[in-house]
Amino acid sequence: MLISKKMAALAAGDATIRRMFEEGRQMKAALGAENVFDFSIGNPDVPPPPAFHEALTKVVAENSPGLHNYLPNSGWPVVRAKIAEYLIATMGDGLANPFGPEHIVMTCGAGGALNLAFKTLLDPGDEVITPRPYFMEYGNYVDNHSGRLVSAEPGPDFRLNVPAIAVAITPATRAVLINSPHNPTGVIYTAEELAALGAALKEASARFGRPILLVADEPYRKLAYGGRTVPPVFPHYAYAVAATSYSKDLSLPGERLGYAAINPDMPEADRADLFDALNTANRILGYVGGPALMQRVVAELQGVSVDVSLYERRRDLMVEGLRSAGYTLTVPDGAFYLFPQSPLADDQAFVAKLKEERILAAPGVLFEQPGYFRLCYCADESSIKNALPGFARALAACA
Amino acid sequence: MLISKKMAALAAGDATIRRMFEEGRQMKAALGAENVFDFSIGNPDVPPPPAFHEALTKVVAENSPGLHNYLPNSGWPVVRAKIAEYLIATMGDGLANPFGPEHIVMTCGAGGALNLAFKTLLDPGDEVITPRPYFMEYGNYVDNHSGRLVSAEPGPDFRLNVPAIAVAITPATRAVLINSPHNPTGVIYTAEELAALGAALKEASARFGRPILLVADEPYRKLAYGGRTVPPVFPHYAYAVAATSYSKDLSLPGERLGYAAINPDMPEADRADLFDALNTANRILGYVGGPALMQRVVAELQGVSVDVSLYERRRDLMVEGLRSAGYTLTVPDGAFYLFPQSPLADDQAFVAKLKEERILAAPGVLFEQPGYFRLCYCADESSIKNALPGFARALAACA
Repeated sequence: MLISKKMAALAAGDATIRRMFEEGRQMKAALGAENVFDFSIGNPDVPPPPAFHEALTKVVAENSPGLHNYLPNSGWPVVRAKIAEYLIATMGDGLANPFGPEHIVMTCGAGGALNLAFKTLLDPGDEVITPRPYFMEYGNYVDNHSGRLVSAEPGPDFRLNVPAIAVAITPATRAVLINSPHNPTGVIYTAEELAALGAALKEASARFGRPILLVADEPYRKLAYGGRTVPPVFPHYAYAVAATSYSKDLSLPGERLGYAAINPDMPEADRADLFDALNTANRILGYVGGPALMQRVVAELQGVSVDVSLYERRRDLMVEGLRSAGYTLTVPDGAFYLFPQSPLADDQAFVAKLKEERILAAPGVLFEQPGYFRLCYCADESSIKNALPGFARALAACA
Repeated sequence: MLISKKMAALAAGDATIRRMFEEGRQMKAALGAENVFDFSIGNPDVPPPPAFHEALTKVVAENSPGLHNYLPNSGWPVVRAKIAEYLIATMGDGLANPFGPEHIVMTCGAGGALNLAFKTLLDPGDEVITPRPYFMEYGNYVDNHSGRLVSAEPGPDFRLNVPAIAVAITPATRAVLINSPHNPTGVIYTAEELAALGAALKEASARFGRPILLVADEPYRKLAYGGRTVPPVFPHYAYAVAATSYSKDLSLPGERLGYAAINPDMPEADRADLFDALNTANRILGYVGGPALMQRVVAELQGVSVDVSLYERRRDLMVEGLRSAGYTLTVPDGAFYLFPQSPLADDQAFVAKLKEERILAAPGVLFEQPGYFRLCYCADESSIKNALPGFARALAACA
């Protein structure tokens, strides 16, 4: 065989997901895309905000010399300085030190930032703990760098379950990975939950004589509803890194731009080691500071995001419709996912039933949480309204 | 320690290079950038061709719906179809099958494409053979995926030494990596050399009962001098992949866009396995089809490149100047590097001597080829002319 054993196993796992999406594609081809209700993938359908196109047009028209040159491995210093300013304004409270360019590493999306973090932290066999359910790529990101993802039981309503994480920590634990607002549940962790996690990690780090890194995956930070803000991890634990991107809040997932931010309160020697290592990883993984032009554009858009109320109206419509139909679910506070209970214990069987109603969803097993299914409301309101009778019929058929 | 043992070792190795470049930066700050002759880094200084800015402006003005959305893991099909057309026109001779979108995977630069190839091929401990000297990142790209880079003796004048490669092949060999036009020597491999390599790989693959992949790193393909074209690898060996980018030929290294092209003559089952695996790797490494906007732009620029005669004039100026001063070197046929013999056996000591003349160069040891040094002529003609007396003095000082 040409490809490696490791990749053959991975690609075989992917084949299942591909088959699922391929069936959806075939269904759309056969019935017309408007007659298929696709809630299976988190591909933002809300266009980028108008300010984005203005900024892009301006940067392109200026055509400044060296615009497309190699960047420093961390990305343009002037862009990182703008991001640092924004982080001071939005996450600076409770920190002893201000963010600066030396805390920011630009990379290819939040996925790139997470790969950097794990490349930097993991020797073969080292462990990363994350609560269930979790974004299906986490296991791959950790495995890319010879690590092992260990999952921990969530709390009720998928709240952060600190004791379950604490008990999973071993001498091989190098990082704990959390995600808030959370994919697939939409949960936002409270400051109190983060403080408890910080205390547990501090205790475990002291016990094992080596810091455990808290990695906060935050691509949905700006997608919070009801005027909520997402509590940052940094005031609660010095050894923390946040990964984010412009994929969801500016609807630019194809542009592959994001960054890793290091806690400015991390002890300086470790911060410098980590920053250098993230830079090395950024170079040798081929991201090399992330795409150049788009950095100049987003530099001017630090406070900007898509109209979150669009997603919030969809959430309300979907939550109300599904609850009326008899589904059991927790109301998400952010991101654009719902994670209802599957009426059948076998969530894949229920997802197949939904498909009979021309509804595409993702089974909970993909998130290591069987008995649930994920709906992504990257679909317009009429599509949501038109899908509701099908959801009701599918549930009734399981009774 | 926070970071991994593996990364600490890597970052320590990097510190030497960083120190070297840091000294250069300090020298420029102290003496003025115009008084330092920097031939140390391959950062193209020739601006992108005018057609690039026109195409970029057009794509941005059109602002087509979904322009910045998630792409398929291989990149936009329409872009891959344009590339396939270009490959048919420029590399199609001698192939039984035409290129199509199913042979192209868009990624983040040629570095991304090489990472994809190794991610796809390597189980822990598997080997990749490359001739010396070689681009310093090759070892890192292979090591990223738990493989081991094995170097092979070059031929006279750094020509392809097929027997040296053949003898290095073991049951653990999964790939042979070549680079033409070559960094750091500027050598272009002939069709005859490639045919000999193809025959050797065919024989070894048959002997070990498993295909060895030929990976051709070709970011300098369009930078060939004297009207030369670079012979493609594909007619000579079915199990071949080419990695390339728009970094050098369109001067867009910061935009992180390139692709991997699979030989259309590869047996179909293996082609399909490899394509699927490259797609999986592209997703889980976070490249996800490469930056979206820039793909639309380069789709229209398949035959376009910077004015190669600019680089050719610099080559001539530098070769003539250095030879007149008494340096021994092979005339490069492509890329933008010179690799002269170091007058001192210790190339690092000679690079330090050049620094006294305000000339920045890279020592051969960085390319696993001590006794030489690399000069990159990404610097204007006046800078080259003004540096020549310093080169002469440094050589004289070693006599």
